[in-house]
Amino acid sequence: MNNWSLTDADFKESYQLKETLFSTANGYLGVRGSFEEDVIKNVPSVRGIYINGFYESEEIVYGEKLHGFPDRSQSILNVIDTQRINLKINGENFSLFSGEVLFYERTLNAKTGISTRTIHWKSPKGDEVKLIFKRLASFFQRELFLINFSIESLNFTGEIEMISTINGNVSNIVATDDPRVGTANAQALSVVNLLSKNNQSYIEAKTKHSNLKVVAGIVHQIPKSFSEKTLKEDKQIIHLINGTIQKGETLNFTKFAVYTDTNRHKNELEQNKAILNDVISNNYGYYADLQKKYLNDFWKLADVKIEGDEKMQQGLRFNLFHLVQSVGKDRWSNISAKGLSGEGYEGHYFWDTEIYIFPFFLFTNPDLAKNLLNYRFNILDFARKRACQMGHNIGALYPWRTIAGDECSPFFPAGTAQYHINVDIAYSIIQYYSVTDDIAFMVDKGLEMLIEIARLMYHIGHFRESDGKFCIDSVTGPDEYTCIVNNNYYTNVLTKNLFVQIGDIWNEVFNSNNSKLSELVKKLKFKNQELKDFSTAGKAMFLPFDKKRKLHPQDDSFFNKKVWDFENTPKENYPLLLNYHPLTLYRHQVCKQADTILGHFLLENESSLEAIENDYNYYEKITTHDSSLSTCIFSIMANRIGEYDKAYNYFMNTARLDIDNLHHNTKDGIHTACMGGSWMSIVFGFAGMRVVNSELNFHPHLPKKWKYLQFKIKFKNRVLDCLLSQDGIQITLEKGAPLNVNIDDKIMKIS
Amino acid sequence: MNNWSLTDADFKESYQLKETLFSTANGYLGVRGSFEEDVIKNVPSVRGIYINGFYESEEIVYGEKLHGFPDRSQSILNVIDTQRINLKINGENFSLFSGEVLFYERTLNAKTGISTRTIHWKSPKGDEVKLIFKRLASFFQRELFLINFSIESLNFTGEIEMISTINGNVSNIVATDDPRVGTANAQALSVVNLLSKNNQSYIEAKTKHSNLKVVAGIVHQIPKSFSEKTLKEDKQIIHLINGTIQKGETLNFTKFAVYTDTNRHKNELEQNKAILNDVISNNYGYYADLQKKYLNDFWKLADVKIEGDEKMQQGLRFNLFHLVQSVGKDRWSNISAKGLSGEGYEGHYFWDTEIYIFPFFLFTNPDLAKNLLNYRFNILDFARKRACQMGHNIGALYPWRTIAGDECSPFFPAGTAQYHINVDIAYSIIQYYSVTDDIAFMVDKGLEMLIEIARLMYHIGHFRESDGKFCIDSVTGPDEYTCIVNNNYYTNVLTKNLFVQIGDIWNEVFNSNNSKLSELVKKLKFKNQELKDFSTAGKAMFLPFDKKRKLHPQDDSFFNKKVWDFENTPKENYPLLLNYHPLTLYRHQVCKQADTILGHFLLENESSLEAIENDYNYYEKITTHDSSLSTCIFSIMANRIGEYDKAYNYFMNTARLDIDNLHHNTKDGIHTACMGGSWMSIVFGFAGMRVVNSELNFHPHLPKKWKYLQFKIKFKNRVLDCLLSQDGIQITLEKGAPLNVNIDDKIMKIS
Repeated sequence: MNNWSLTDADFKESYQLKETLFSTANGYLGVRGSFEEDVIKNVPSVRGIYINGFYESEEIVYGEKLHGFPDRSQSILNVIDTQRINLKINGENFSLFSGEVLFYERTLNAKTGISTRTIHWKSPKGDEVKLIFKRLASFFQRELFLINFSIESLNFTGEIEMISTINGNVSNIVATDDPRVGTANAQALSVVNLLSKNNQSYIEAKTKHSNLKVVAGIVHQIPKSFSEKTLKEDKQIIHLINGTIQKGETLNFTKFAVYTDTNRHKNELEQNKAILNDVISNNYGYYADLQKKYLNDFWKLADVKIEGDEKMQQGLRFNLFHLVQSVGKDRWSNISAKGLSGEGYEGHYFWDTEIYIFPFFLFTNPDLAKNLLNYRFNILDFARKRACQMGHNIGALYPWRTIAGDECSPFFPAGTAQYHINVDIAYSIIQYYSVTDDIAFMVDKGLEMLIEIARLMYHIGHFRESDGKFCIDSVTGPDEYTCIVNNNYYTNVLTKNLFVQIGDIWNEVFNSNNSKLSELVKKLKFKNQELKDFSTAGKAMFLPFDKKRKLHPQDDSFFNKKVWDFENTPKENYPLLLNYHPLTLYRHQVCKQADTILGHFLLENESSLEAIENDYNYYEKITTHDSSLSTCIFSIMANRIGEYDKAYNYFMNTARLDIDNLHHNTKDGIHTACMGGSWMSIVFGFAGMRVVNSELNFHPHLPKKWKYLQFKIKFKNRVLDCLLSQDGIQITLEKGAPLNVNIDDKIMKIS
Repeated sequence: MNNWSLTDADFKESYQLKETLFSTANGYLGVRGSFEEDVIKNVPSVRGIYINGFYESEEIVYGEKLHGFPDRSQSILNVIDTQRINLKINGENFSLFSGEVLFYERTLNAKTGISTRTIHWKSPKGDEVKLIFKRLASFFQRELFLINFSIESLNFTGEIEMISTINGNVSNIVATDDPRVGTANAQALSVVNLLSKNNQSYIEAKTKHSNLKVVAGIVHQIPKSFSEKTLKEDKQIIHLINGTIQKGETLNFTKFAVYTDTNRHKNELEQNKAILNDVISNNYGYYADLQKKYLNDFWKLADVKIEGDEKMQQGLRFNLFHLVQSVGKDRWSNISAKGLSGEGYEGHYFWDTEIYIFPFFLFTNPDLAKNLLNYRFNILDFARKRACQMGHNIGALYPWRTIAGDECSPFFPAGTAQYHINVDIAYSIIQYYSVTDDIAFMVDKGLEMLIEIARLMYHIGHFRESDGKFCIDSVTGPDEYTCIVNNNYYTNVLTKNLFVQIGDIWNEVFNSNNSKLSELVKKLKFKNQELKDFSTAGKAMFLPFDKKRKLHPQDDSFFNKKVWDFENTPKENYPLLLNYHPLTLYRHQVCKQADTILGHFLLENESSLEAIENDYNYYEKITTHDSSLSTCIFSIMANRIGEYDKAYNYFMNTARLDIDNLHHNTKDGIHTACMGGSWMSIVFGFAGMRVVNSELNFHPHLPKKWKYLQFKIKFKNRVLDCLLSQDGIQITLEKGAPLNVNIDDKIMKIS
């Protein structure tokens, strides 16, 4: 096993799943790993190319629409298809489903950033060829998707015909009964222009409602002896490329596809032409080298080495590679629940970003982490507008799910009610500041978001009459199997953290640049009294706790409910959400995912370790992990309380969730949060790393079967190399000034 | 003022509202009070004719569909239009919006059951006519709608042309943002057949999905000197009726319209023809007489006389008349929230029936009351199916809103979560049995429903671990401003009542007819242990109570929430549901309507009078009465605690809610629950009547400005006349054996 790559040798099995797994992306552009050539009809397939943040908006239809329900959806669009290349080899159509496949292998290599398909094919008539398809979505030139293809004739001389298309007749998958997939608009893009000149072809297409345009352009590099002509149809342009191959000869072709869109490109057609004409001055090898170089830089800090566990090593690298493939790298985009690998969850950005994915980038590539926060700043006005719609005259409420910034959740009990997204974002901003000391960001953007978030949380809460405790009612925590509750521990503890910290942060940042912040004070009509109010509320925050049992209930009423009858629930009824009405779930003590346990992980000091242990043992029994956001947290916290076998098992379910299709829905896209969670399981779990009061802490414990574990951390302009062995942790300062870290609660100087 | 009728003298004002108020119906067929002739375009109008229980079903679209969400809607349909008659008078088109209207009056008479429109019109050219339109939906022949029309020429001799149509080109009002109106399908009926022969015209139309067909037939009685011809168009048939009128002459026309549908009529076209040919052997006067006779019988028991308050007297009679117009009289129909007067709430049947309308019929017309329960029995299998969908392997869960029996609520927090509809129905069955002693009904239907309901309620509840109390979690009570709560007082107390009573009822009924009930036991696999379980749960039922404040919280957490800021809520923000997101409402102590107070009214003995008083005073302050189901209950309970002025004021807001359009939405249909509530306010409020342990109790108090109040009650095969004066109550036995009643807690023998 090459633990840098994913390999597949059976093209007949789970085609749609592998379209996801082998997708190539660069954060802007994502291409599902469909075969270039057509597959036979009965093979389920979602052939798709997506641009991060490029969406269509449709009216959301409700059976019963109440005030403040979002009016319009936003769904990521399958854009113009450029990945199709059919081949005629000596007069016969090439297909893996005809003739004889003598060899087949597909790999996706995390070091090279290239997906390679190698085939030895014998045609029905007996002609044998060796074909290699390579593809990449360029990290260097985000608009560029490349297919390089070579063909070797093993036993004949004959004609090769390549039918390569650019096709605007694309659609999204239609509505399903699975709420995790979503109800996208089938055919949202309409072709407005087809251009073909000098063997360059362009298609312009636009959306109906979101007022966006996309342009795709293609051009081919072909052997000199080959001829090319183009054929314009209604919505597609076909390039017919012809020539002769000699027995023993190998021919090489490259298809360049360039995408531009109205968000990022001022004159999207002209810019597309310019980029396309620029990139074809180079060849495939040039971009393959750059791709490797980019990833080389990426892996320098991002790589995690696991010695002694090939499968975990592979799973982890696969995950981290997909994260860098998925993460948006400009102000228009974030990282969606499925990355750019599928249409699940409509391409929406959730809290997954902040709580599950952000930490990986924060500690390995803080610029990308900052970009994720910049995105939140860019949609701050939408969050302000949403707060107004919800009846608040102050503050900002971030959308539970969105692309461009509007709340798009049509089901508020597991949507808008998850107010915790607000404090999740605040938590990330505070973490970012704490890890990077990037005061400029706080001055420009961070503090403004923190204030607006704190205002909203203060406004939805209240001081309870009976005891003066600050309570937050009618919210939904991370666990969507219990909705609309009072005093969700997770929401309250994260809000408390914000309220308690914001005063100090304000003062620190204000002292650094009070002229710019004075402007902010004016703009926000911010009063110092507000800081006092936040502080008072923070101190008075109610955190539900059952003193007798020394357990935290997930919310005020959680422990009064009936425990789910797990014993009599057949296996095939999981995930429960697909088999039980929400009310049936709400009525029971049953959790989709870590909720209170997640709160403990993020803010460990708010509870005694004893209560954390008790909670772990209690909630573990009633958590189904039906969400892919769960096992990583349980792995981390199992480590924390010394349940090392459990920690390892939960990690196994995390690190290979997509590769092994453990949730049976990877066909709809990868699970980016879980991928981020696998990195967290390593760093926060096995290494037990935490940042507390701006200091690094470790509680390392290496799984028994591993020889060592190694990863790097960027922290306050330093680079630290962390090496865990069965003997403990060794931390080396690779860059930056010496610092103290706490290892198992003992201070160690790293220099 | 004629307090038997509603009169309008201003045809220009609020046309759409008056279409509702002047609607004529008979429980099967309802015709909105549109003018026969076309009105000008800028007058908002919903011209509609509805058949009770005749609906179309469409797929319900969800932005996010979870397990158990209803798949299909059911919406009452606007059926074939037969009410249009345009007139050409001496060459000029008749319209109230041209020429000069010298006199106009419209009345709806509750004694005759006829709506009359009298007009003195001067045409633009100066021809003067007196026109009288009379219309009725026959109580005697439910399929029949009649328009009688007379014209008198005051100053000319000339031609009269009548253009009378039957038109299948009909549609429902389209989706709006008001959740109380609903999202019906615009054009659901398609015409499949037009027939015209011997001046009889028929249109057959069918629905697309619900597989129903409706036929309408028309025929005219016209003066002998007049000629008639018919003109068939695409979807309508036009009858052109011509002749001459002499100066001073009065001519008389009658349009007979007959409706049949697949539910009620085996061969709907042939039966329609048969009925039409039968009814035209009589004239308008014949049906007007029968109409009067029917209503005469109705009013014998139903009438409530208020001496000293003309406006209340009128309002009350208007309400009771609309109730008898609206109530379904066959197994296919119930009484919808808007009767047959409009499309609001899609023509659905709610709990309104049992808790607000059923009592009026129970005590004045028990056969009609029984029919309402029969309807519930007829949909029992749907309720069983729904219980299964919700994850219960036992019992029945009645739909929150439906026409044919399927749950149609697309928003479960204020829909399926209102499990209380189950115990509302149970309450009515128990009341029915208690008031009528109709043991045959209990044997055939009542007990089966009670058992299935009790099973479901037992299944959703549980004995709380901490104290063994029986709790019911994650439900919504009557107050939809607080959804998905634990231990809603109302739900729990009604469930307790069922659990506590079902054992005795079972034994009593079983002893009366154990052969039939033995079959039932087999069919339901019913075990005696279940009765014991119900009894145990009933005794252990948790009823939330704040001992310190001597108040019942509406649910477990209600008193912990923030009280709504009424002071800073502008008047135009009511009803709150149209101006605030549900979560904002849920987070506060604010009630749309009586909830705990309603529980107290229905089951007064479950609480001390002191706590009832406390609750009244507490909840009154935080109740907006945004629902039309609220003021009647507050009126009743204000009487109960001696707040007589309040009782009167709440009654005023109840009795004339539609006539005075107090909720600004009567244009979409009458509020049948509120109408029933106005009768309840009289009998349960001012007379303070209750049935406790099968005995009648009274706590009478007449409002100061009233001279006397008189009504009749059917009770256990007796008829009692109740006369309240300022001196007390006088009860006379009009029929049946002597009985004891309690008046202000003193036993009185009535003989």
